[in-house]
Order: sequence, then C-alpha cells, then structure tokens
Amino acid sequence: MGPFEAIFVPDELAEAVSDRAWLEAMLEVERALANAESLAGVIPADAAGAIAAACDPGRFDVHELAVQGRSSGNPAEPLVRALRDAVDPAWRDAVHRGATSQDVVDTAAVLVARRALGQVIDETDRLAAAAAELARLHRDTPMAARTLLQQAVPTTFGLKAAGWLVAVLDARRGLLRANDGLAAQLGGAAGTLAALGAKGGEVAELFAAQLDLPLAPLPWHANRVRMAELGSALAVVAGVAAKIGTDVALLQQTEVGEVLDPGAGGSSTMPHKQNPVASAVAVACARRTAAHASVLLGSLVGEHERAAGSWHAEWAALSGALALAGGGLAAVARLLEQLEADPGRMRANMRDELYAERDRLGLQADEDYLGQAASFVDRALAVYAGETEEDW
Amino acid sequence: MGPFEAIFVPDELAEAVSDRAWLEAMLEVERALANAESLAGVIPADAAGAIAAACDPGRFDVHELAVQGRSSGNPAEPLVRALRDAVDPAWRDAVHRGATSQDVVDTAAVLVARRALGQVIDETDRLAAAAAELARLHRDTPMAARTLLQQAVPTTFGLKAAGWLVAVLDARRGLLRANDGLAAQLGGAAGTLAALGAKGGEVAELFAAQLDLPLAPLPWHANRVRMAELGSALAVVAGVAAKIGTDVALLQQTEVGEVLDPGAGGSSTMPHKQNPVASAVAVACARRTAAHASVLLGSLVGEHERAAGSWHAEWAALSGALALAGGGLAAVARLLEQLEADPGRMRANMRDELYAERDRLGLQADEDYLGQAASFVDRALAVYAGETEEDW
Amino acid sequence: MGPFEAIFVPDELAEAVSDRAWLEAMLEVERALANAESLAGVIPADAAGAIAAACDPGRFDVHELAVQGRSSGNPAEPLVRALRDAVDPAWRDAVHRGATSQDVVDTAAVLVARRALGQVIDETDRLAAAAAELARLHRDTPMAARTLLQQAVPTTFGLKAAGWLVAVLDARRGLLRANDGLAAQLGGAAGTLAALGAKGGEVAELFAAQLDLPLAPLPWHANRVRMAELGSALAVVAGVAAKIGTDVALLQQTEVGEVLDPGAGGSSTMPHKQNPVASAVAVACARRTAAHASVLLGSLVGEHERAAGSWHAEWAALSGALALAGGGLAAVARLLEQLEADPGRMRANMRDELYAERDRLGLQADEDYLGQAASFVDRALAVYAGETEEDW
Amino acid sequence: MGPFEAIFVPDELAEAVSDRAWLEAMLEVERALANAESLAGVIPADAAGAIAAACDPGRFDVHELAVQGRSSGNPAEPLVRALRDAVDPAWRDAVHRGATSQDVVDTAAVLVARRALGQVIDETDRLAAAAAELARLHRDTPMAARTLLQQAVPTTFGLKAAGWLVAVLDARRGLLRANDGLAAQLGGAAGTLAALGAKGGEVAELFAAQLDLPLAPLPWHANRVRMAELGSALAVVAGVAAKIGTDVALLQQTEVGEVLDPGAGGSSTMPHKQNPVASAVAVACARRTAAHASVLLGSLVGEHERAAGSWHAEWAALSGALALAGGGLAAVARLLEQLEADPGRMRANMRDELYAERDRLGLQADEDYLGQAASFVDRALAVYAGETEEDW
Repeated sequence: MGPFEAIFVPDELAEAVSDRAWLEAMLEVERALANAESLAGVIPADAAGAIAAACDPGRFDVHELAVQGRSSGNPAEPLVRALRDAVDPAWRDAVHRGATSQDVVDTAAVLVARRALGQVIDETDRLAAAAAELARLHRDTPMAARTLLQQAVPTTFGLKAAGWLVAVLDARRGLLRANDGLAAQLGGAAGTLAALGAKGGEVAELFAAQLDLPLAPLPWHANRVRMAELGSALAVVAGVAAKIGTDVALLQQTEVGEVLDPGAGGSSTMPHKQNPVASAVAVACARRTAAHASVLLGSLVGEHERAAGSWHAEWAALSGALALAGGGLAAVARLLEQLEADPGRMRANMRDELYAERDRLGLQADEDYLGQAASFVDRALAVYAGETEEDW
Repeated sequence: MGPFEAIFVPDELAEAVSDRAWLEAMLEVERALANAESLAGVIPADAAGAIAAACDPGRFDVHELAVQGRSSGNPAEPLVRALRDAVDPAWRDAVHRGATSQDVVDTAAVLVARRALGQVIDETDRLAAAAAELARLHRDTPMAARTLLQQAVPTTFGLKAAGWLVAVLDARRGLLRANDGLAAQLGGAAGTLAALGAKGGEVAELFAAQLDLPLAPLPWHANRVRMAELGSALAVVAGVAAKIGTDVALLQQTEVGEVLDPGAGGSSTMPHKQNPVASAVAVACARRTAAHASVLLGSLVGEHERAAGSWHAEWAALSGALALAGGGLAAVARLLEQLEADPGRMRANMRDELYAERDRLGLQADEDYLGQAASFVDRALAVYAGETEEDW
Repeated sequence: MGPFEAIFVPDELAEAVSDRAWLEAMLEVERALANAESLAGVIPADAAGAIAAACDPGRFDVHELAVQGRSSGNPAEPLVRALRDAVDPAWRDAVHRGATSQDVVDTAAVLVARRALGQVIDETDRLAAAAAELARLHRDTPMAARTLLQQAVPTTFGLKAAGWLVAVLDARRGLLRANDGLAAQLGGAAGTLAALGAKGGEVAELFAAQLDLPLAPLPWHANRVRMAELGSALAVVAGVAAKIGTDVALLQQTEVGEVLDPGAGGSSTMPHKQNPVASAVAVACARRTAAHASVLLGSLVGEHERAAGSWHAEWAALSGALALAGGGLAAVARLLEQLEADPGRMRANMRDELYAERDRLGLQADEDYLGQAASFVDRALAVYAGETEEDW
Repeated sequence: MGPFEAIFVPDELAEAVSDRAWLEAMLEVERALANAESLAGVIPADAAGAIAAACDPGRFDVHELAVQGRSSGNPAEPLVRALRDAVDPAWRDAVHRGATSQDVVDTAAVLVARRALGQVIDETDRLAAAAAELARLHRDTPMAARTLLQQAVPTTFGLKAAGWLVAVLDARRGLLRANDGLAAQLGGAAGTLAALGAKGGEVAELFAAQLDLPLAPLPWHANRVRMAELGSALAVVAGVAAKIGTDVALLQQTEVGEVLDPGAGGSSTMPHKQNPVASAVAVACARRTAAHASVLLGSLVGEHERAAGSWHAEWAALSGALALAGGGLAAVARLLEQLEADPGRMRANMRDELYAERDRLGLQADEDYLGQAASFVDRALAVYAGETEEDW
C-alpha cells in the first residue's frame, strides 16, 4: 500500500487486506488449530477454550508484532509467544501445538485472500453486468471501429461492450479457479506433521474443516503454485479492467466525445474538462497489480522445505494484488454503470470512407452490414446468461 | 531468443517456435481460410486450390517478410501481397478474403503455441514421472529437512520428491487450461466479419474446423486474456522446474553431497566439481519465462479494436515463454531421471539435534516419527495415479 | 506497504515515506509556492502568511484527503480546496496560484524521496563500511571459492568481502546520481506556467530555492526519467544487498557453518537453528523493490502533457522502492557489522583437491598463491578510501 | 529475439547482437588473452600467434557450440576445447591460460554491448536532433495541451517537442554512464587470478588494453551492477521513445489529425488509414526492453563467486535489451524526422474554452500568454546545444 491509497482501493476492500485483517486471521488460525486438536484429543478441551479466549484481536497490535518479529522474520513467532504468556501455564504447550509459523501465516493469508477475493469477484460481477447492459442497449448502435488508433470500418458500440464482457468473463473464470486453490496449510516444522505423531492427518482435516477451507494433498510450504496463480489471475482481471478504462478514456477525449462519464473529474479552473479518473485509476491499478503478481511468480523459486526470502516477499504482494485488482475493477464497474453513450456523436464522427467496403459489397443498411456484429453481441449475452445461471 | 540458445532450449522445441514454424503456420491459416470460404461458397473451389498451392513455405523467407512488413508493422500484410501476386489474377481477390492481418498472425500464434505447448506438457509429464519415481523409491529415506537453509527436523527424501510432484501436477493443470483456451481467430478488419456478409459465421466455423481449433464466442483481437493466461501458466511451470533445480543444486553442494547428477558438468581444470548445469539452466529459463509472461500480461491493455504496440509485443514473448518453459522443464526432467540419491550421506549429514523432538515425543523409530510423511507420499502418488489415468 | 511491514522496514524510514510524510511534504510545497509568489510580487505577503499558517499538517488526514480525491484522482485537489476554505476569502485565489495538482504531488514526491533516499544512502554507507572492515580483517583468510555452488579453488574471505564492497560502491554511485536528479516541479496546468504571465520563470526559481531543490530545464510532468532512474537505482542497490545476504545465508548453512550471525533468528523448538533472517529480509526486499521499480519504468510511457494512470501508479511504487531498498540494506548492514567469521571452519571445509592447481604451479604458501587476491582487496579498499574522502 | 524480429530491429543492430557477433567477440577475447599473456611472458609469442590464427570465426558455428555447451552450461568451454584441438599440441596449454569460461563470455558480452550500444546512442542522437528541429520550427505554434486525454489549456507544439528532447537527453546520459561501466573481465576460476601467479595483474591490464576496454578494480563475476545498470538505462531510453511514439499516435488519430507520418502504414482495403506503425513498434520495443531489463536486475542476486542460473539468464536479456531499445529509438527517430505537423489543424482543434484563462489574465496574444513556453523551448535547445558541443 502507499500514500493516498483510498483513491485506488475501496474502504471495505482495504479493510479486508489490512494489518488488522491479517491479525484477526492469524488468531482465527490459532483458535481453529486449538479446536481441532481438542477434537482430536491432542490437547484438552479446557486448553482449547483458554486459547480461544486469548485469541482476542483487541490485545494485539500488528505493527508491534512485526517489530517483535524482526528477529525471527515473521509475525507468527511473537504472536505465539504472546499467546503462550496469556494462557494458564498448564496450557502453555498446547498453544500452536505441532504447527510452524508458516502454517499460521499461510493459512491466515488464505483467509485474507478468500475474503478479499470475494469482493474482487463481486466487482467483477458488477463490471460484467454493466458491460452486458451496454451491449444489450447498443446492440445496433453504429460507431467507428478503430485499429491502431485510426478509424477503420464500422462496428457497433454493442459489440465493443460485448468484447469487454467476454474478456471480463474470461478473466473471472481465472479468479474462480484461483479461489478453489485456496487451501489450509498445516505441516509443522518441515511439512511432516511429525510432532503430532499419529494424529497429524486427523488434526489437519479438522483444522481445515474449522476454517471451512479445503486441504491440499500435501502441505504446500514450498509449493507456491496457488499463490502464483492467484497473483496472475488478479493481474489478468486488473488488465481487463484497464483495457476497458483505456477504451473509455479514448472515447471520452475532447475530440471524440462519444461517451461521457458523469462522474468524471472536473477541474475548478478548467470546467470544460471531463477527466477520465476511473480510467486512470484502472490503469494505475493494473500496472501495480502486475508488479505484485511478478513477486508472487518469483516466489515459486525457494530453497528446500521453507524458503529464505521468497516466502517473506509474498505477504505484501498478495495484499497489494488483491486490493489493487479490486480497486481497478470497482472503478471501471462504476464507470460502465454510469456511462452515457452518445450515438449521435458516434455516427457523426464516422468518416465517409468507412462505408467504402459496405458500398463495395452492395449492402445498404447498417443492419445488413453489421448483422454478424449483432450476432456476436447475442452470443456474448448468451454466454453471460449461461454463466450467470450456473454459478453466480 | 538469444545467443547460445541451444543450451537452454531443446532443438525440437526451438523448431516449434522458429521463424519457419511461424511462417508455416501463417500459410496454413491462409490455406484453411481459403478452404473454408470455398466450402461456404464464398470463393470458388478453384481459387481455394490455387491459394493452397501458393501457400508453399519454400517460397518465402520470414526475415524477408519481416523486412517488407516494416511499413505495415506486421508480417501478414506482405505475405498476403505475395500470395495475391502468386495466384492467377482471377483469384487475386479470393486470397485472405474478409480477413485481417491479425486474424492470420493470431491464429498462427495459436497453432505455434499449441504445438510447442504439446512438447512443454510432454516435458512436464516426464518431470512428474521422474519425481513420482523418486518419491516412491525414497518414501522412507530419512534426510534433514532444511528451512531457511538450516537443518530443522527430519523428513524423507520421498516427501521432498512428493512435494515436487504435487507442484508439477498443480502447474500442469494450468497448462491444460491454457491449452483449452487456444482458439482460432477470424474477425475481419474490426471483429465484425462484415466483409463476409451473411456468411461470416459459417466461414468462421469452417475455418476453425479446418485447423481443428475451437472458436471463441467473439473474435478476440482486443481480448488478450488467453495469451496472458498462457504466459502465466508457462511462468508458473518454469518456476516449479526452477524450484526443483534449486533444491537439487543445494543438495549437490560440495559440503552436502546428498544427491549426484551423473550428467553434471565437469571441469577440465577442476575435475572434482559437479556443476549443477541442469539447475542453472532451469533457473535461467524461469527468470526469462517470467519476463516474457510479464509482456503478455501487459498486452492485455491495448487500444480499441486493435492495439498499437501491445499486440506487436506478444509474438516474441509467446515464442520465448514456450521455448524457455519447455527448456527448463526438459533440463529438470532429465536431471531427476538420472539423479542418484545417497541415503547414507543424507543420514550422516543429519545433526543429532534433529532428533530432539522425536525423543521428546518418546518415539524411537523413524517409521513412527515419519509416518505422516509416508502417508503424504502415498497421497501424492495417488493423486498422480488418478490424474494419469484420467487425462494423460 | 503490506502487513508486518516493520519486519522489513526500519521505523524511521517507514516514517519518511508514510502518509504523514507525504502530507507534510505537500503542505511544504504549497507554503513554498506562496512564499515564492509573495517574493515575486505575484501575491501579497499577507496572503503568503495566511497560507503558511493554514498549511498545518495537524488539520488534515491523508486517508480523508484520498477519499475526497477519488473524484479528481489525486490528493492535491482536495487539499487545495481545503486550504482555500481555510484562509481569509480575500486570499482564496492566492492559494496554489498558477500551479497544478501534479506540481504539488511531484514536488512532494521529490521531498519525500530526498529524505528517504538520504536514509537509504546512510544504510549503504554502513554496509560499505562493514564490508570494508571484513575485507581488511580477512585479507588473508583462505576459504573455498564456490562456483555454481561447488567448491572450485581457494580464495580469501577478504576478497569475497571486497567483492561485496565494490558492488555496494558501484550501486551507491547510482543512488547519488538519482539524488542529483530530484528537481522541483512547477509547470502549471500544462507545463507552460502561463497563468503566472511574465513571472513564471522567476516564481519557479524562487520556489525551488525555498525547497532547496534544483530546477529542471523544463517542467517534467510528462518526462518521468528521473523517477524511473531512481527506481532502477534503488532496485540495483537492493539487489546488491540481497546478493550479500544470499552469500551469508549459504555460508551459514548447517553443513557449511563458516560464518555466524549472532543476531540470527533462533527457534524455541529447534534451538540448534541459526535462521538467516537478515538474509531473508534482504532477498524479500530486493524482489519487491524490483517490482516497484518496474512500475516506475512503465510510467515513462504516458499520454501527452499529463498521463492518465501511469503517473498515478508512481506514488506507492516510489514509496515502496525507497522503503524496501532501505530495509534490505539496513538488514544486511547490521548483518555484516555483527558477522562472525570462522577461519578454522573455512580452512577445514576446503577439500584437498582445491589445491591441485596450486601444487601444479609449484607454489607452496597460500600467500604466494593468493597474492593477487590480496592485491584485489587492497585495491578495493583504496577505491573505498578514495570515495569516502571525496564525498561522504 | 522472436519471429518477424526485423520489423522491430534494424539489420545492422540485429547483426551487432547476433550469434555471429557473440562468436566473433569470444574469439577476439581469446586472441587478446593470448596476446596479453605473450606480452607478459606467460606464454611464448609463437603460441599467441598460433592461437590468434585458430581464432577464425569461419571455423565455428554458434548453434553447434551451444549444443556442445549443454553439458557445461556455457559456450566458452567447448570453444576452448576446440581451440586447444586446433593448435599445435605444444601450445595446447597456452590456450585460455588462467582464465575461466565466464571471463570469455563476460568480456565478449561487453564487446557486443559496446558495439550495439554505440548504435543505440547514435539512434538517440538522431532522435534528439529530430526533436530539437521540431522544437525550433514550432517554438510558437499553438496547440491544445492535453491532460488525462482532455484538452486543458493552450501550449505549443514546440514545447511538446522540447519536452521530448529533454527526456531523450536525460535518458542519453544514462546510456553514456552505462557505456563507461563496460569493463573487461579477467579473474580466473574464482576471481583471484591465482593461476597466473605473480603475473595476474599485469596480464589483466594488457588484456584490457588489447581490447581497448577499462579494467574494473576487481573481477566482477559476482558483481553484476554494470549489467543491471545497462539494462535499466536501455529500458529508460526505450520508454522515452515509446512515450514520444504514444504522443504521435494520439495526435495522428483520425479525429485529431494534428500530425501526419508520411511513412505511416497504409492499408489496401482501408486507404484512408494512417497506421502509426513507428509508434506501435516503439511501444512494443519498450515493453520488451523493460522485460529484459528485469531479468538483468534479477541477475544481481547470485550465489558466491559464480552464480548458478542468474548469470546464464543474462546473455539473451542483454542482447534483447540492446536490440529492442535501439529498434524503438530508430523507429521514433525516423518518425520525428519525417513528421509533418499541421498548425492549422492544431489551431482549429482548440476549443474556445481553452482561452478562458488567458482572457481572465487580460492577455490577448498567444505570444504573451505562451511566452514562458517559448522560454522553455529556448532553454531546452540551449541544453541540447551545450551537450552536443561537449561530448557528441
């Protein structure tokens, strides 16, 4: 995160990846672990109760934990120390039994990601709905298609919006797959769960169930594919939002003026300006999301059972990618929801030459010439309807 | 591609993404288009025959096409010009009818990608098989688990290999999904297929069928999700290969010596060295693949119906990502196939302190202490067996 | 920034790039502008006094400004509005006279960067001093040189440290150059300073002088070379810190044990571990700094006189790159300051075969065989001494 | 490199980074080493003569060397073997005496880089000259300044071009510094030059002198700052070229039409189009150069005296960054040289509202209102003139 981050990230999403959210998630993990171990008979029920009571976010400060974590390189180690100090000495050893710091941080990361990703997917849905609505409304609204920034031939604004819609749906599928990959982590010091003796497997299953998370076949301390894929999926969807934002900003240029964003930023000294703020936000978010995703990709390569540095680079990258992808999507979703298209201007801007091909083909009406474009719109809307019914 | 590329990329894969392969794919696309249009009655069968005959790779030179393509910014435009000159003037207008340069280059890219990706997936399968074999063989071979490069607690070499296996399988699923996304492109000048009148939809379907490719709901000139996802999937699998290579290089250190790569690079002046060449290749390939993938991600953001620059950046990035991901996988697959583990050295290297926890637990045999590790290995092998039966 | 950021970034540096620091810098800019305009006779001295009084950081909240800035896409616009509301209506128009939001944010960014960069350079100096001390102390301490992670031939620990030193000095020069490039920004709405009439040039000079910043030949709203170069210089120095951290982590491996970091992270359950926490921090910081630098590089490409999105992506990337480069340097500087080398273990680890070449050359003493290595150490120390005298 | 690379890279520059150029450079290095050792009395003059004779590029094939280099992971090892086989057995041991493969490849890289960089700087000079000429010609040509893609206030085309000029000059300084950093590499197996006994230092100096390269204080096998800085400088200048290209493409839009690139790509079916091909090339080149630069940045982090993988990733990244930065610059240099500005259209496009501020200020003539803009142009031209005299 950086300065002025609220320009880019909605408050609710910022909260979902905040220091506080990470802290709460870590405490949730310790609590779930204690419950699971109590259910499996590894620790007494009273111990689990005492641990659950100690897992009160109000008693901790993430910055302070991080400061204390400087010597171990992670925030779970001081958290566990604090929890051990907080419970009755008899239950001290029951805290964090058989787990390693990475179990806590990774599962907390998954909880944070799942919640934030839910919001990201919601924004994606809003964006898809808004694009679909534009495609439907402007199925037959002719405008100039522009290739390499030059007017090329006629198209429809509906087809442009349908193209946006299909890209959003394509990217959305990636988010859903990444979401499916978010699994609990419990491996102990080196992924063997050895400290839990014969109870390891059972505890892991109960632990995951407590958190309503799937369990991967193996602990994934050193297998970061799910994190890398989540980062990439977020970068893809942020890129799609930025593509839409770019198109709108270009259409909104003073000399083009084919769409108007009523929420566009004005200027006190230049009241004639319609600054494409949502587009700028989406572009900035996409660039930054891609950078965070590159960190997550790089973290695939780490040493042995737990890496020295590549894991540590993930936490902020993950938070950042979630927040910024969601921010870009939210900006563009709102943009498309409010967008006012100007069919008259679209038509007026079209150079006569654009119809050369139509004339060559002997077609007279746009309806004939742009019939396939309309079919494409219908097809995109059908895909959208199909996916909406299925899983939304 | 760069100098000494054969160090990194197997010859067959280099060929699959070579200039020649791109040229052949472009000609295949023009031929398929002509056939499709002939079948749809858009052009005469004789025209299609003449075009097919002209689509002879021996008559063209990719470098020359690129030189001629400098003025249009793409290689399809001069290719089409050449094909028009090559056929009987009567069929001149039948060449490339209703298509745009991007249709040809994108569909050619998909053909190139599909073939190269087939090889990449084959290397992934080899790597999975080799990792599975090590997991099976060393299910109960104890070794030191190392976290942050320090000996932590005991694990087994089998579990380490099972971790590699699961990561490979996770990444492999991404490759299969990316493969499924590779669709034919036919949209005409601006994605409306308008120049084919009422025949557009039919031609597109016949065209895709000729090439045995799926058809996307809409032309995807300006929706680059499939390319970005392919790049990311390649970067992920290349990262997994580099992770395995890194582990092996660390185990192969002079002071560790727990595995030996019989194919390791020697040194004439230092015959005692066992250079982990495959590991170095895998690491280099992963870094470069990630860079190419970042270009493909960036290309999501382009202007309007056809972008000015972001599309153009894709061609080499796609070729590079395919070649280098495959190169890294091939190096590590061969590495694991030949890897000689030294269980004696593994055991001898384990510090006494590693067993402190086992002793605390009152367990005596490794079998008891590492029982969950063995279960994890079994589970990984079961997943592998399941996926192998299903779709390999 | 992300969760647990204090693990990576020293408090003082975190403050230097904090929301609060940005806010204070923006207010400093508005104050300097008012003073400059008062000196140039553009606004009355009383107005400047009133503006300076209103520029009190205690009255503002960065998050709130960002929330208000959502509609304009930047935080300067609401800040200016608030300042105008805060002064006597008579001076309302004197606030921010002739300037644009980007003037404020860019100059604030420069102020933030200059201060944080000062700290980064200080850490670089600490790191250089620590590396120089190790080079001096261990000028003649033999150890195994390792290439591709294999023992190759003898070297000295002093030469290894001298290599670190020279890399730090090389990277440091880049930081100094980037620092020199940090210039005030004052261009008005479109870089013409037109709203200040004939006084534009004079005001710009007074403005820069107030802030003790150089002035670029032209406003640099759309020329982001200095930001891109700063990002790259930070990524380079962070990479050098991570290279040193990587070497130390490898030397500190259980099986190698040639150095000991007394500050290494312990583990309550595994007291034998010496976790190379500083190394992990340095590696994580380098990866993240490089990602932020890539955003700054990407921001070179923007539209016309002020870009829609690429500029907006810079703020967090700049803060992040400064904080993380400094964090990595601080971790490794402390690491080298405390590092305990074990010459006995270094010697004991050397395989006999390493001396094959020495024997072939008929040299008997390490002093003869490693004489050039010692000369290199002396040369590195001489370079260091020279640069220290010159400009530190 | 990728398919159709000639669209992006001029032939002469492609040659400068070609396989052949790398081979010739490696042979030049071996020859220079033999000569230096002969001058220092390390090997007989006859041996040096025989080696020089064997260093005939016609006898080798880079692909073949790379294939042979698969087992060692670099191309120098098989090259040295071949040279040893080619000379009289008496001189066999004189070949490559005391050097390591990395000495050869790194110094060859430097030779390749120096030559290609010369061309890149030449293109930068062309670009600067063309921008300066436009600034001079259009010093007083009013046009709309556009911020966030909206018309904002008046500026001049001269100031826009002066902004391009200053950015080019800023980036050019980075290229010159990177050029200065290109130093010969001679360190032997581990950077100690031990195998040359007391002659190491002398041989290194003679070697560098033979190649007309500076010598770094120490061998830089594991200090990759110069490579990372070169990559970053190339990415910066490529970004500047893309920024200019983007501005031109936007000005050239059908609806804007303020500039015309007479070399713009036409379209046979859409003769009205003026495709901004040079802009597209520049954008594509910048994106790919940045990706290559990120690889070079990543290669800063490597293990011990010679890295396993990060070094290997550099070769293609270096070649690619040089070729593509130069390609982008060449495209935009030609573009600006031929660019036809249309002052009438610039004036006609300006919305009346743009003059609101001027009217408020009571200024009547553009000359008054845009006087500071003209001063800025003069200042940029003065900087340009100063730098041209100094060092071009």
